[in-house]
Amino acid sequence: MPVSPIILFFDFTSPYSYLASVLVEPLAARHGRSVEWVPVLLGPVFEATGARPPSQQPLKAEYMARDLSRSARFLGVTYHHPQPFPVATQQAARVLLALQRARSPLAVDWIHRVFEAYFVDGQDISGMPVLHAVGRGLRLPPEQLDAWCAEPELKERLRANGQRALAAGMCGAPYFVVDDEPFWGVDRLPQIERWLQARF
Amino acid sequence: MPVSPIILFFDFTSPYSYLASVLVEPLAARHGRSVEWVPVLLGPVFEATGARPPSQQPLKAEYMARDLSRSARFLGVTYHHPQPFPVATQQAARVLLALQRARSPLAVDWIHRVFEAYFVDGQDISGMPVLHAVGRGLRLPPEQLDAWCAEPELKERLRANGQRALAAGMCGAPYFVVDDEPFWGVDRLPQIERWLQARF
Repeated sequence: MPVSPIILFFDFTSPYSYLASVLVEPLAARHGRSVEWVPVLLGPVFEATGARPPSQQPLKAEYMARDLSRSARFLGVTYHHPQPFPVATQQAARVLLALQRARSPLAVDWIHRVFEAYFVDGQDISGMPVLHAVGRGLRLPPEQLDAWCAEPELKERLRANGQRALAAGMCGAPYFVVDDEPFWGVDRLPQIERWLQARF
Repeated sequence: MPVSPIILFFDFTSPYSYLASVLVEPLAARHGRSVEWVPVLLGPVFEATGARPPSQQPLKAEYMARDLSRSARFLGVTYHHPQPFPVATQQAARVLLALQRARSPLAVDWIHRVFEAYFVDGQDISGMPVLHAVGRGLRLPPEQLDAWCAEPELKERLRANGQRALAAGMCGAPYFVVDDEPFWGVDRLPQIERWLQARF
């Protein structure tokens, strides 16, 4: 029987998505699953729910800052809260979509390196200079990245991902779908693990 | 050295607070702590953050319904989603405040029985008939409950609890404070446990 992947909808500017990005592959591997990474832009998701991002809500913003650094320690993941935050991520996402379209093994490297550039090294991943530097580490020429970022088909794919995410019920990031069961938040990883073990 | 209690801010209509109410005492006991139960009304908290309750947000409402029943199974807690939902809880809270003022050991019983009446038995805890029935189980006369619910001092205590909650940063329920560290959500219980063990 073929097993479906763990589908992970995420935005590169989402700190809890970054935490999940570090942990989801070992979890999937323990259960013979793969991960399907689906980059989206969170803006339309917040529009759909009618809520402002937590980082713009009184009380929640303060709580989130404290919870994030504590959750990172709890999970054993290196994390430094970046400035500026949040940032636009459509360029980083389009490059990923190009690599995914080409079925390149560099796609997963791109994900981890972009997240690390932002949440470990504090670099502004909204700008092409930082993305060029990440690309160079993977032997991707800057001109290639620029071309992908301007490509209409990749822009359309990113929009389509957003539609797919909303159709799957995405109400925040990270958002997982495992065998049609939705899970929101890095704090649901223990439930995902139990789900893969026992369909509780 | 005296140890401070686990402070738990909650609203009787909050399902995740109910889940926490079942689990927090054994956790506290494992670490030689007590629980300080602080009933509040969630309305002013949502006003302060500017967000509507999740149950009134598109996508989040659908997700929450599924997440709640799955989280209850994951945690091993009996849960049936009640109708109507949410309900007004000031009467249930005022009775609790009266019992707490009297340092009555029935206070904790009241908490568990009101939560169970709503989230296990599906009874509308906003109405006095249901609260009377819960009270009878604890040998509290209905007239006593009615008198407490009308008492200005208890109304004022409930308002003051809300102020205290906002001052502590409460941005949702359940909201815990452990040695000045805030934790939001029943899904943070594992972090609270680690905190009590190791101050990570």
